[in-house]
Amino acid sequence: MARDRKGSLVSFRPDIKVMDCTLRDGGLVNNFAFTDEFVKDLYLANIKAGVDYMEFGYKASKEIFDPKSFGKWKFCDEKDLRAIVGDNKTDLKLAVMADVGRTDFKKDILNRKDSVIDMVRVATYINTIPAAIEMIEDAKAKGYETTVNIMAVSKVNDEDLDGGLELLGQCGVDVIYLVDSFGAFYPEQIERLADKYLNVAAKYNKKIGIHAHNNQQLAFANTIEALSRGTSFLDATVSGMGRGAGNCYMELLLSFLRNPKYNKLAIMSFVEKHMNRLKEEGAVWGYDIPYLLTGVLNAHPSSAINFINQQRSDYAMFYQ
Amino acid sequence: MARDRKGSLVSFRPDIKVMDCTLRDGGLVNNFAFTDEFVKDLYLANIKAGVDYMEFGYKASKEIFDPKSFGKWKFCDEKDLRAIVGDNKTDLKLAVMADVGRTDFKKDILNRKDSVIDMVRVATYINTIPAAIEMIEDAKAKGYETTVNIMAVSKVNDEDLDGGLELLGQCGVDVIYLVDSFGAFYPEQIERLADKYLNVAAKYNKKIGIHAHNNQQLAFANTIEALSRGTSFLDATVSGMGRGAGNCYMELLLSFLRNPKYNKLAIMSFVEKHMNRLKEEGAVWGYDIPYLLTGVLNAHPSSAINFINQQRSDYAMFYQ
Repeated sequence: MARDRKGSLVSFRPDIKVMDCTLRDGGLVNNFAFTDEFVKDLYLANIKAGVDYMEFGYKASKEIFDPKSFGKWKFCDEKDLRAIVGDNKTDLKLAVMADVGRTDFKKDILNRKDSVIDMVRVATYINTIPAAIEMIEDAKAKGYETTVNIMAVSKVNDEDLDGGLELLGQCGVDVIYLVDSFGAFYPEQIERLADKYLNVAAKYNKKIGIHAHNNQQLAFANTIEALSRGTSFLDATVSGMGRGAGNCYMELLLSFLRNPKYNKLAIMSFVEKHMNRLKEEGAVWGYDIPYLLTGVLNAHPSSAINFINQQRSDYAMFYQ
Repeated sequence: MARDRKGSLVSFRPDIKVMDCTLRDGGLVNNFAFTDEFVKDLYLANIKAGVDYMEFGYKASKEIFDPKSFGKWKFCDEKDLRAIVGDNKTDLKLAVMADVGRTDFKKDILNRKDSVIDMVRVATYINTIPAAIEMIEDAKAKGYETTVNIMAVSKVNDEDLDGGLELLGQCGVDVIYLVDSFGAFYPEQIERLADKYLNVAAKYNKKIGIHAHNNQQLAFANTIEALSRGTSFLDATVSGMGRGAGNCYMELLLSFLRNPKYNKLAIMSFVEKHMNRLKEEGAVWGYDIPYLLTGVLNAHPSSAINFINQQRSDYAMFYQ
């Protein structure tokens, strides 16, 4: 069922929620090696900017991942969160992500009353949705807001996607995310997919979110396309920091949104202090030809990340 | 009158023409100081890539602009063109741009039979359309294909734009360009504007073109949005090289188009050889926060270009 646009370019929609994923998706660039000053300043900038949610990182299993090999935001221990946010007596809500199969969620995700975390985001592939639902119901029972992020949908056929969305519609999750893991979608495709997700949301009283990647310089365009269809949870990162080609730029998104509570200059001041330095120190992300090619080929960006880390530029060879 | 989309993501439209503007819009970055090797290789890459038109530069007045202060592609003398292309016995057509009020077109634009140039593109503001039409009719009488590029339409009200488009519809021009000079438009606005231009085109049997800027990382998204409405002439530059935030990336556009005659790898090989070096040598263009801000403010990028050339990053101060 095709849908109409929701809202106009001059109005604002109170259902819109902006999610800062800089530490989580950006942490995939630098193994979560952010300084405490960076994290604290980002937290304060997000509050000042009127951002609705800040994703601090993952709740990854310490059985599977050695804490000595990663920064602390791979694990988001309660004490590390509180060292930054105290009791977080602010309007900014805190989120963490947990991957199906890579988390000891029963042990590591506390009851909400014992945590400063507000939201648990469950990342899943289409074939692990039953395991994702188990995690969602666990987080829900503990008192959290929940999202589910179905990754790599550009590889999923319509029948499987419809089945997966039905299962998720029937579970307790609050927000279902449309995720363009490979940066493979054009706005016309996002329009059709967002309408599909929104139809499920209307049936089961859920919200829809969008998480885009910038392989084809379309992360922002795809985000506002999804938004204009009725998607309400919008992921972005400061300067687009994120795996491979990165994500939708928070600076662009806040410039677009018309709700006067959003203040893009707070984020730009953070960029001025931190992001240019981070790049100078060697963190590499953002649009580049190899990511364009994996996007066009609908492939995981890992081969492009390796190619760029080798400082190669023989693009034609890479493509073949 | 709203229009339907034209074509689908898997078909191709034979009316599509790709225009490489690297030397012309990119020349605004480096005062047209391209080496002959660069220009020759770009010409050969465009032929190999199946690009339809290559814009070599401007036909600027030597009374107004001192040839000692600019590279030769500011003027595009016939002998300089022929030194690169010979008689251009290829499928690639050659274009030049002439600005209203900054060209001695009667003298400097030869008869087509004496030139390797195929197309004259006239750049005008809304209030100089009568002068533009004089130039168009002169070029038309000399035997050229012609386009008119109405600049800065994001500053023009609907009534003036409708009047200007009517005048242009009635003149001999072949292609009318929708130009987002300030990178100020979102895809929803491009959709409405493209439909407006296309309605004039249908009435007067013209073609419509799109020339986008990347201030908000939307040049490619806006180009394919205009294309999907029915726009047929698509401007792009290699690696987006162009004034300020630059243009639609040729690499992205050729990856999107489905006509098998287009070969993106020919352009990528050119990037590998030339574009990274050009950036290392100090040419500066591409998305940056100051350009985002001039885009959002619907302002000329000149203040942002100065800011960046001073290597400043106090964005909040710049905005105010």
